[in-house]
Amino acid sequence: MSGEFELISRIAARISPRSDVVLGIGDDGAIVRPPVGRELVIVTDTLNRGVHFPEDTSAFDVGWKALAVNLSDLAAMGATPAWCTLALSLPAPDDVWLDACIDGFLALAVQHDIALVGGDTTLGPLSLTVTACGTVAAGTALRRDAAKVGDDIWMSGTLGDAALALREVLQNKPCADELRSRLDRPSPRCELGRALAGIAHACIDVSDGVLQDLGHVCVASGVGAEVRLDALPASEVLAVQVEGAKRWRLQTAGDDYELCFSADPTQHSVIEALSNSLDVALTRIGRVVSGQGVRAIDAGGGEVQLPSSGYQHFG
Amino acid sequence: MSGEFELISRIAARISPRSDVVLGIGDDGAIVRPPVGRELVIVTDTLNRGVHFPEDTSAFDVGWKALAVNLSDLAAMGATPAWCTLALSLPAPDDVWLDACIDGFLALAVQHDIALVGGDTTLGPLSLTVTACGTVAAGTALRRDAAKVGDDIWMSGTLGDAALALREVLQNKPCADELRSRLDRPSPRCELGRALAGIAHACIDVSDGVLQDLGHVCVASGVGAEVRLDALPASEVLAVQVEGAKRWRLQTAGDDYELCFSADPTQHSVIEALSNSLDVALTRIGRVVSGQGVRAIDAGGGEVQLPSSGYQHFG
Repeated sequence: MSGEFELISRIAARISPRSDVVLGIGDDGAIVRPPVGRELVIVTDTLNRGVHFPEDTSAFDVGWKALAVNLSDLAAMGATPAWCTLALSLPAPDDVWLDACIDGFLALAVQHDIALVGGDTTLGPLSLTVTACGTVAAGTALRRDAAKVGDDIWMSGTLGDAALALREVLQNKPCADELRSRLDRPSPRCELGRALAGIAHACIDVSDGVLQDLGHVCVASGVGAEVRLDALPASEVLAVQVEGAKRWRLQTAGDDYELCFSADPTQHSVIEALSNSLDVALTRIGRVVSGQGVRAIDAGGGEVQLPSSGYQHFG
Repeated sequence: MSGEFELISRIAARISPRSDVVLGIGDDGAIVRPPVGRELVIVTDTLNRGVHFPEDTSAFDVGWKALAVNLSDLAAMGATPAWCTLALSLPAPDDVWLDACIDGFLALAVQHDIALVGGDTTLGPLSLTVTACGTVAAGTALRRDAAKVGDDIWMSGTLGDAALALREVLQNKPCADELRSRLDRPSPRCELGRALAGIAHACIDVSDGVLQDLGHVCVASGVGAEVRLDALPASEVLAVQVEGAKRWRLQTAGDDYELCFSADPTQHSVIEALSNSLDVALTRIGRVVSGQGVRAIDAGGGEVQLPSSGYQHFG
């Protein structure tokens, strides 16, 4: 195993530059030039082995996902990705694993033009913390506290595939590659998030489960929400394999990295046009109401209590 | 134990605001307003229990040190601290421990006017990753690649107390509080770092040991360095307890979070004035020479090979 400093050089040599990076990896800190007139959005998320990804996840996918979950947070704020850092703890030196992990990380970084500008490598149980910075035109970031009574609630993509894949992995069942990749290689909705600035009111990513995450929007905005469970978008794989309340449970379990946003009903056609131009499914799943809390309802309008709605890291 | 979201609210309620923070803890990301005409410096560092601090370190000190090591990196770049995030993995929910850890973190944050704007809390082996942002006037950051042949090499404070304290802890010897606090509560040299912009050429913090860290400066700047081991500043505690090569070994072991910088000899009196005005000892420990590598020499000018010079996280 090469030492820490050789590792840093190897990573540095593989990073595609951005013109606003004055000094990248290799000093005590990175130096970047924030664009004038824009605000900075800062997000951070940790992945621990066995907690946030199955033990058997490939190094490439671990690297990919560590960045993806952070890009998803930037997307939920409507921010354009710019720079990020990676703090990596590894139980033992392992060049092959590390190179593959960085491969996965950089494969996604290139797609979203985000530069890895710094990091830290330490000995410890496998854990990755990424901090990512993006930029938004001043005053245009999408926030949780901006939902308005009467808004439609929209959802991007489909929900539940990651939870289905995780269930199969945990039960040692064979999991089709296509399904497994929904767990291991989420596609953060950065383009959509940016496009929604000025169109959406509130926006979040549903990493912790759509009902729980919508609950935070309701608290922050001082509103309530009604979600039609049968309207939650499902992939064909999920729709074929799981029905009814079992499906709803998977669809509200989190780890999907899709965007959920509220918008005035007058934006309906604008949002449908956006769906076409970005080739991302956008589905109306409910509406913002007065009051508080999230009501999950079935096709008949009856309230449904789901046994476990979403993910809490602690508690 | 309260859940993650209650924890977030509790932390959010305790943070002193900065006027450039548009949106702090509690959304998918924080929103901040970078000052016009300044560059952004981004640093990140992880502390793992048993690797970066002894198992018995108090929660308060763990929180303090997690921020301190990052502030020290900002100091080494000459940056003014602005915003930071904290990603915290805890093996089991523990309100009391967490509150004390946040106490330590915020006690130091207030001193340096840095705002905690976001974070992540997860289950996992005890680990803290802080990412900190600071700002510098464009073009004035202190870098590793700016040392010039003929420069004096200066050192702030004293070296070796943290290593002495760690040795005593690992040998289960009683360790005086004053000495132990040098290991657990380093005082990052932010004020000094800022003041050195425009005065120093290259600058680093010596977290990994002065000889090793100077080695990086030499590589980046294409120069060599000569360090007089007997000139390395020592505290009274260290000077009384340890002599000669044993002392030098402790003084080059790292974990001191002092600044080492190079400056033109004509800056001598300016630097001495700075030492007085900031009340920080600044000691000349060597000079930048042509060639490459760091030569550690004794009082007679003979080269000294120290058995282990500094800390590598991997390898």
